[in-house]
Amino acid sequence: MIIPIIASLVALGFVVFLSFDVIKQNQGSSRMIEISQAIQDGAKAFLKREYIYIGIFVLIISALMAAAPLFTDVELGWRTSVAFIAGAVASALAGYIGMSIATRANCRTTQGALTGGLQGALRVAVSGGAVMGMSVVGLSLLGLCIVYIVFDGDPVVINGYAMGASLVALFARSGGGIFTKGADMGADLVGKVEAGIPEDDPRNPAVIADNVGDNVGDVAGLGSDLLESYVESIIAALAIASLIGLSSDSLKMIPLYIASAGIIASIIGIIFVRITGRSNPQGSLMGGTYVSAILTAVATYVIVSKFGTDFTEDGHSYLAMGPFWATICGVVSGIIVGFFSEYYTSNKYKPVKKLAEESKSGPALTVTGGIAIGMASTAFPVLALAGAVMLSYHFAGIYGVAMAALGMLATTGMVVAVDSYGPIADNAGGIAEMAKLDPSVREITDNLDSVGNTTAAIGKGFAIGSAAFASLGLLAAFMKSAHVDVADIKDPRVLAGLLIGGMFPFLVSSMLFEAVSKAAFQMIEEVRRQFKEIPGLMEGKVLPDSAKCVDISTKGAIQGMLLPGSLAIVTPVLVGLLLGPDALAGLLVGALVTGVMLGIQMANSGGALDNAKKYIEEGNFGGKGSDTHKATVIGDTVGDPLKDTVGPSINILIKLMAVISLVLAPLFI
Amino acid sequence: MIIPIIASLVALGFVVFLSFDVIKQNQGSSRMIEISQAIQDGAKAFLKREYIYIGIFVLIISALMAAAPLFTDVELGWRTSVAFIAGAVASALAGYIGMSIATRANCRTTQGALTGGLQGALRVAVSGGAVMGMSVVGLSLLGLCIVYIVFDGDPVVINGYAMGASLVALFARSGGGIFTKGADMGADLVGKVEAGIPEDDPRNPAVIADNVGDNVGDVAGLGSDLLESYVESIIAALAIASLIGLSSDSLKMIPLYIASAGIIASIIGIIFVRITGRSNPQGSLMGGTYVSAILTAVATYVIVSKFGTDFTEDGHSYLAMGPFWATICGVVSGIIVGFFSEYYTSNKYKPVKKLAEESKSGPALTVTGGIAIGMASTAFPVLALAGAVMLSYHFAGIYGVAMAALGMLATTGMVVAVDSYGPIADNAGGIAEMAKLDPSVREITDNLDSVGNTTAAIGKGFAIGSAAFASLGLLAAFMKSAHVDVADIKDPRVLAGLLIGGMFPFLVSSMLFEAVSKAAFQMIEEVRRQFKEIPGLMEGKVLPDSAKCVDISTKGAIQGMLLPGSLAIVTPVLVGLLLGPDALAGLLVGALVTGVMLGIQMANSGGALDNAKKYIEEGNFGGKGSDTHKATVIGDTVGDPLKDTVGPSINILIKLMAVISLVLAPLFI
Repeated sequence: MIIPIIASLVALGFVVFLSFDVIKQNQGSSRMIEISQAIQDGAKAFLKREYIYIGIFVLIISALMAAAPLFTDVELGWRTSVAFIAGAVASALAGYIGMSIATRANCRTTQGALTGGLQGALRVAVSGGAVMGMSVVGLSLLGLCIVYIVFDGDPVVINGYAMGASLVALFARSGGGIFTKGADMGADLVGKVEAGIPEDDPRNPAVIADNVGDNVGDVAGLGSDLLESYVESIIAALAIASLIGLSSDSLKMIPLYIASAGIIASIIGIIFVRITGRSNPQGSLMGGTYVSAILTAVATYVIVSKFGTDFTEDGHSYLAMGPFWATICGVVSGIIVGFFSEYYTSNKYKPVKKLAEESKSGPALTVTGGIAIGMASTAFPVLALAGAVMLSYHFAGIYGVAMAALGMLATTGMVVAVDSYGPIADNAGGIAEMAKLDPSVREITDNLDSVGNTTAAIGKGFAIGSAAFASLGLLAAFMKSAHVDVADIKDPRVLAGLLIGGMFPFLVSSMLFEAVSKAAFQMIEEVRRQFKEIPGLMEGKVLPDSAKCVDISTKGAIQGMLLPGSLAIVTPVLVGLLLGPDALAGLLVGALVTGVMLGIQMANSGGALDNAKKYIEEGNFGGKGSDTHKATVIGDTVGDPLKDTVGPSINILIKLMAVISLVLAPLFI
Repeated sequence: MIIPIIASLVALGFVVFLSFDVIKQNQGSSRMIEISQAIQDGAKAFLKREYIYIGIFVLIISALMAAAPLFTDVELGWRTSVAFIAGAVASALAGYIGMSIATRANCRTTQGALTGGLQGALRVAVSGGAVMGMSVVGLSLLGLCIVYIVFDGDPVVINGYAMGASLVALFARSGGGIFTKGADMGADLVGKVEAGIPEDDPRNPAVIADNVGDNVGDVAGLGSDLLESYVESIIAALAIASLIGLSSDSLKMIPLYIASAGIIASIIGIIFVRITGRSNPQGSLMGGTYVSAILTAVATYVIVSKFGTDFTEDGHSYLAMGPFWATICGVVSGIIVGFFSEYYTSNKYKPVKKLAEESKSGPALTVTGGIAIGMASTAFPVLALAGAVMLSYHFAGIYGVAMAALGMLATTGMVVAVDSYGPIADNAGGIAEMAKLDPSVREITDNLDSVGNTTAAIGKGFAIGSAAFASLGLLAAFMKSAHVDVADIKDPRVLAGLLIGGMFPFLVSSMLFEAVSKAAFQMIEEVRRQFKEIPGLMEGKVLPDSAKCVDISTKGAIQGMLLPGSLAIVTPVLVGLLLGPDALAGLLVGALVTGVMLGIQMANSGGALDNAKKYIEEGNFGGKGSDTHKATVIGDTVGDPLKDTVGPSINILIKLMAVISLVLAPLFI
């Protein structure tokens, strides 16, 4: 266990170094500092309230787990509940640290753009994002190791750790997502569409809330999302190694070693970006991602060669190098998923260009076309995932499926760094606009934002693919724990489970949509009110009451996340108790099947609608201000909650239900 | 076999009676006759071209089936291919007859409204719709009996009959759906939105195409859709009785007797509407539906009491009355599904009212809200279906699941009659508008249209529920035929099948969306061109070139239906051959799970968006012409293809893949 502990401490050391590197940068003018401070305050206030509610959930659930009736074994109950709390704390802490630095990096990125151009801005933004990335992997792996050592590697207890991380992820992702999109839609619909003022205009009272949203949704929310995937891919492999009757014990250590190697490779990747970013930012980000991926693959080969042994699983024999090839299957399928997200959502390719052209006939065809693109985009990724499932199973059984997930997630540090840097650049642009800096600064930050898009697409592919693989691993572990040898798809209880599970992502999606709409609706009313009632606001003489808007988003997000979150926890328990573990296995698979489809569809519909708008704004089919542009603005507003609230939450939902089922498996026998 | 033959001949006799009853009515003024003739010609021209393409598919597939390599048994091959052709012909013929009378009933309904008010119009429209309904049940049951007798009740051969009906249904539904929505969106977007002229204005060149679309999509397409469900529910029960090792032979006859009873009950229901319709049209339609449903339930009780015996299936024992209770489960779940469609889509209830209110913030929130309503509406129907699956299984095993489907579909004659009467009333309204009759006539036909909506919602519930049950029955029969004893959901091949199957409805949906958008786009360009280039058109001095618009929709529909149709045929074959029958079983279940969700979601999203618009038009939240109204018009345009093209086609897709797998099962062993 010493290797993963050292690796995670190195990651945390790097967090400290990067944090100081960000903070020592120049913050810019007093107006910039003021705006950044408002964003920091808003984000902190939201996170505090969010964490209070999450804390209550965590306490109730851990109390229930610690209570004897849930487990046959009282000792097992409280141990699991301790591990559960540890997982929740690790995730919450990572989100807090990452967001604190991200909200400090924004004005410094603006200042970097002002004084150092694209290169100056890139370095601050990447460092800010890397804090989130390294906090995620460092804290979660360190916590996992501690739990592992304290509880003697008891696999049932360790599953509780994953459940804690998963619970926080669902609330953070859905709450953050509702916050950011409610604010965004509200700001856009009144500001851009009704009042005709530009994006991020300081007169718009919802703009600060919109910028806060970028941080709590796309930085803290995303971080907790990938932290969960990361932890679960490791734990799924551990659980399978313990439960499914693997013949070799060294297979338990391999996932931890690969995760350690991934951390070091991610650090090298980030350093690569810092060094090469001066000359070619686009190539440098891609390069850093490739460097860390290739180093991880090489390390995996070495680790599996050294520690792997031929093994048997459920009576089948597998070769020692099987887990390595399974990892490669995972990585390749993740890259394919990412490639097709890029193809269907980038305005360099046909689908988005066609969507932009169809928008000439008005917003109805834009929206329909956007939905159609997302649906079409499920085809090849799903074929790739299905192929990877069969191949990784062929190479190393169900252990191989978990290893495929781990393959995609070993470089989580790097992936989160690249993903979090986008919202920092976005914030920097907002600050430039609000502080009325020269438009050239805004151009730099916009450029910075778009540079990371391709790399982020691959990250998205990894997130979706790994969610599927990790939940398959958890499913297999659950079935073993709950003594379900076979769940036949024509068995009526399994079928009922499949149908209910398949429905669940639809139901939760509808709730999240409603929550975003409600928050946006209230935001719209408030912005309209301020425009009307605050004298001098539209003339730019006084500042709007931004705090009120942050408060509306906060309340909307908290209210909106509670019901879907509670349902996701209660449903597997109810199905398991009322219909039995066979039906619960069906539920998990049903949710996986529709969840993967909706996850891919929503991410890509949203992306395509967003980029169709950008394509028009570049001057095509009439450009900004034309009817075609208006159609795509409406399309983008429909797509926003799809890609940033609902789609990502569905990914977590699948995994949360799987991990709850696994932890509570003894209850359903 | 004499009973079902007599019942189907009675149905066909009733068709002849009703047809004469429609034709003998007054057609109205020469302008009305002219318009009706144009609609007839357009519909016939489309159906002719559509049937040529379907014919080519049928011939190729039957030739392949007759060819030895597909089947181990050459004789079985050509017999199946003959049954396949018979199923296709029965469906095509029913569609043709129904549509011929429907396109003749339209102007006569207008005239009925003019001279006899609501009651006068109701009678013609119901008779016209009933022709479609009784043709569907009469022809399909007669054909089935003939095939059964000719081929000595060989279950494998009879499955071919279902496959023929299914193939025609997919093409007719998707082709008709693309036609009608392409024309509708085109007519609305240029006419209503751009030129600001009312719906069905004679100056709009796309209006005739729109009216043709109502007939080819909502009459012929819907008829072939329910014909397929009807045939498959009977055949699934027959196949299970033969394959699954039921101990009693009389169980084979029960489905045919219940179907016969349903025909007679439907005829009584239609006569009830004709008699009572004079005083209270709304209550009369509901009453007729209830009368036929209750009579069928009573008859089922009598039939099962008389012919049922205790039986064993796969080693489990079931009581003689089990199949009756299974039927009741099906009917109750269908009513629940229908009730919730009504709740989520009617503007009498909260969801649509809230959607209308949200539309005050613009079209983006309308569309998002509409999608959310559809997603939320999956919850209770799916719980009802899952419960009904478990209960009907409990009462009579997998045979019970097929009987549940039959319970919903026995009254297909009545359901189709009520469903087809809507588009006839819609057409009648269009003719009133184009012939410039007094607005009071239009009011009557609009009222007539809305009267049938609640009844139609229950029909929709039956269509969706029965599709799920019928395909579960076919799935079980397939697994038995293909010697797949167990398909475990954690088996990698089954999982791969589940994922690919789950993706398939998304892929096909995207293709259908694209086809509708493309047809609408071309229609928009053509209407704009005619408005600009034909002198005197906008002043109402000359008539537009409607034939050109019909031609555009026809081409768009034919082109659009070929690819998804071919994929639906080829995919199960490829998966079965490449990945094996286990994966194919997974594919069918995966498609079922996402297909049921998308089917319900799309139907109800579309319905809610439609009725939110109507709610605004009734004068709420600003009424006609307000910004809120514009937002809901855009929402309705997005919802239209959801509910009338894509959603219904997905239902058929699920069943078509299941029946193809069943027919070709010997190939995959």
